[in-house]
Amino acid sequence: KRSYNVTLLPGDGIGPEVVAVAKDVLSLAGALEGVEFRFQEKLMGGAALDAYGVPLPEETLTAAQASDAVLLGAIGGYKWDNNEKHLKPETGLLQIRAGLGVFANLRPAAVLPQLVDASTLKKEVAEGVDIMVVRELTGGIYFGQPRGFGTNNKGENTGFNTEVYSASEVDRIARVAFEVARKRRGKLCSVDKANVLEASMLWRKRVTSLASEFPDIELSHMYVDNAAMQLIRNPKQFDTIVTNNIFGDILSDEASMLTGSIGMLPSASVGESGPGLFEPIHGSAPDIAGQDKANPLATILSTAMLLRYGLGEENAAKRVEAAVTETLNNGFRTGDIYSPGTTLVGCKRMGEEVLKTV
Amino acid sequence: KRSYNVTLLPGDGIGPEVVAVAKDVLSLAGALEGVEFRFQEKLMGGAALDAYGVPLPEETLTAAQASDAVLLGAIGGYKWDNNEKHLKPETGLLQIRAGLGVFANLRPAAVLPQLVDASTLKKEVAEGVDIMVVRELTGGIYFGQPRGFGTNNKGENTGFNTEVYSASEVDRIARVAFEVARKRRGKLCSVDKANVLEASMLWRKRVTSLASEFPDIELSHMYVDNAAMQLIRNPKQFDTIVTNNIFGDILSDEASMLTGSIGMLPSASVGESGPGLFEPIHGSAPDIAGQDKANPLATILSTAMLLRYGLGEENAAKRVEAAVTETLNNGFRTGDIYSPGTTLVGCKRMGEEVLKTV
Ligand SMILES: CC(C)[C@H](C(=O)O)[C@@H](O)C(=O)O
Ligand SMILES: CC(C)[C@H](C(=O)O)[C@@H](O)C(=O)O
Repeated sequence: KRSYNVTLLPGDGIGPEVVAVAKDVLSLAGALEGVEFRFQEKLMGGAALDAYGVPLPEETLTAAQASDAVLLGAIGGYKWDNNEKHLKPETGLLQIRAGLGVFANLRPAAVLPQLVDASTLKKEVAEGVDIMVVRELTGGIYFGQPRGFGTNNKGENTGFNTEVYSASEVDRIARVAFEVARKRRGKLCSVDKANVLEASMLWRKRVTSLASEFPDIELSHMYVDNAAMQLIRNPKQFDTIVTNNIFGDILSDEASMLTGSIGMLPSASVGESGPGLFEPIHGSAPDIAGQDKANPLATILSTAMLLRYGLGEENAAKRVEAAVTETLNNGFRTGDIYSPGTTLVGCKRMGEEVLKTV
Repeated sequence: KRSYNVTLLPGDGIGPEVVAVAKDVLSLAGALEGVEFRFQEKLMGGAALDAYGVPLPEETLTAAQASDAVLLGAIGGYKWDNNEKHLKPETGLLQIRAGLGVFANLRPAAVLPQLVDASTLKKEVAEGVDIMVVRELTGGIYFGQPRGFGTNNKGENTGFNTEVYSASEVDRIARVAFEVARKRRGKLCSVDKANVLEASMLWRKRVTSLASEFPDIELSHMYVDNAAMQLIRNPKQFDTIVTNNIFGDILSDEASMLTGSIGMLPSASVGESGPGLFEPIHGSAPDIAGQDKANPLATILSTAMLLRYGLGEENAAKRVEAAVTETLNNGFRTGDIYSPGTTLVGCKRMGEEVLKTV
C-alpha cells in the first residue's frame, strides 16, 4: 500500500470547514485506489498569529517541508488587515511558498457545462473556456531586492520594489509551462511587457529560446495589457498561459472570474522536488465563516491536483474529479453557484454528496 | 476669437486616417463655438524612425511642448517590432509622455446604449457601465531606476526594473482622481497591491491621507487582483479608479474591452501645466491601415477630451460628443462596431456624417 504524509493548513475564515470536507474526500479516494494518508494539522496565517505571534511558525514550515504534500485552506481576515507587513497573514503565505520552493503555480480556469450560466459572459463566449495559467510564484517583484521605503533627492518619502528575473528562473517556469501545454492542447502563450520592461525582455528571450526543445508546442507572445483584453474578448483563444508573478496574480484572477464560479477553482504550486502546496483560489471569506455555507468543491478539486501533480496518483485524482462532476450533475449547489431548479446545500452536505459518488 | 495651436502627430498605421478626420471635426466644432485652431503636423513613432532614425525627434517634442494641445493617432507596426529598445516606436511614446510631463492619464470606458450588444458581457451586466480609469503615467516601473540587464551572484543573466513612487507623485495623481470623481458620481476606488509591495503601501497611505481634503468623495481601496475580477463580476460597482502606471495599463485595457468597442474609446493625458496629449486607446492596426476601414470615433472623441481637459472649451467638447451620439443614432457604423440593421461605412464617410451633425 502506498502511503503519504499530508500536512493540512486549515488557516482562517472558511479554511477549516472546507479543509475538513476535502480531507475526507481525499482519504476515501485514496483508500479506493490503494493509497493511504497520514495527516497532520498545523497553524498558519491569522490562526498562527493569534497563537504564536507569527504568520508562519517554524514548526509549521518544518512539518510542511517534511511531508509529501501540503493542503491549505485560506488565510486572512479583517482582524489582521491593518497589521504591519511582517505580521500579515499574507506574509505567511509568501514565506511558505518560498520555504517550499514552489515556483510554479498552476491555476486552471474552466467553464463547466453545468455552470455556464454563472459566468457574466455571454453563453457563446463562455462555453468551452478552458485555460491554465502557469504563474511564476517565488520570484519577480514579490521577492525582488532591494525593496522598502526611502527618501529621494528632494527629501521626499518613497516606496520601492524590484522586479527581477534571472535566466534560470525563467527557464524553469517556462519548462513547466511547455510540459503543461503538451498535456493539454499544445498551445502556450507567454505574457509579458517586453515593449517596456527589461525584466520582460529577458523573459521573452529565454522563453523563445526554449521553444526549440518543444517543437510540438505552438508558442505565442502577448503583452499583458492585450492579454487582459483578449481574456474578455475571446477567452477560447487561450490554452496555457505562462507569466510572471505579478502579472500571473492579476491574469489568473481575471481568468478565474470568467467562469463565474471561483468557489470551484483549485490551484497547485509545485517546485523542482519536495512537497507541493495545494489550495483553492478563493479567499477566507470571513463574512460566511463558520456558517456551513462555504463551497468545498475548490478545495476538493485541489486534492485532485494534489494527487495528480503532487503524488502522481492519477487514478485517485480522476476519481475525485469525476465525483465532483457527478455531484454537480445530481443538482447539488452551494449558495455561490445556486440557480433555480437545483438543490441548495451547505458545505458539509456537499461534502457528503461528493463522498457518496467517489 | 480664442485661438489655439494644436500639434498633430498622425503616427503609424491607421493613425494618419483617423487624425485627418478628427482634425476636421475639431475645426468645425471650434469654429461654431468661436474657437480657431492652428495645426502643425509632426512625425513620431515608426514614421519618425523611417525619416530620422529616432522615434521622437527633438523637433517634434519641441513643437509639442510649445503648443496648446497635442493630438496623437497611433504608433507602431510589425516593421519596427524587433527594433532595439531605444529604436522602438513605443519608446517615442514614453518619451513624449515624460517630455510633456503628462502624469495623469484619463481613460473612460463606457458602454453606449447603442453598442451594448458589442460587449461580450451579458446585457444586464454591461448595460450602464461607465468607468473612468485615472492611471499614473510618468512614474512607477515604466520609468524607475535602476533598470537594465545584469548578472546575479551565480553568474547568470538577469533583467530588472524598479517600481518606485514618491509621496508627491502619489499625491498629485490622487488629487486629479479625486477631482475627476467629484465631477462624476463621487466614488473613487484606489487600486494597489499593498498586501505585498512597499510601493503600494506608500501609495495607499498617501491616498488615504488625502481623503480628508475631499470629504464628499467616497474612497475605497482594492487589491489589483481583486479589481481584475470585480471588473468582470460587476463592473457597475466602479465609478472612478485610480492606480499606478503598470496596473493602470492592464486595468484600463481590461475595462475598455468590457465595452466591446475599443474603436470608440478616447484618452487624455494631462500634467500640472503645459499641453495635454490626447489619443485613441486603440493601436495602429497595421492590417487595415490605408484601407479606409478604421473607426475614427475614438480619435474624434479624443478631440472632445482635448477641448474639455486640454483647453477648457466645454461647449465645443459637448458639441463633438453630441455629434458622435447622433451619428450612431443615425445608424452609421464602421466594421468594428457593425451589426445587422445598421449602415456600414468607412473612415472618411463616418467623418462626413459626424461633420454633418456637429
Ligand atoms: C494574498 C496574496 C499575497 C496572494 C498573492 O498575491 O500571491 C493571493 O492574491 C494569491 O494570488 O494567492
Ligand atoms: C505602447 C505601450 C508602451 C503603452 C503603455 O504601456 O503605456 C500602451 O500600452 C498604452 O497603454 O498606451
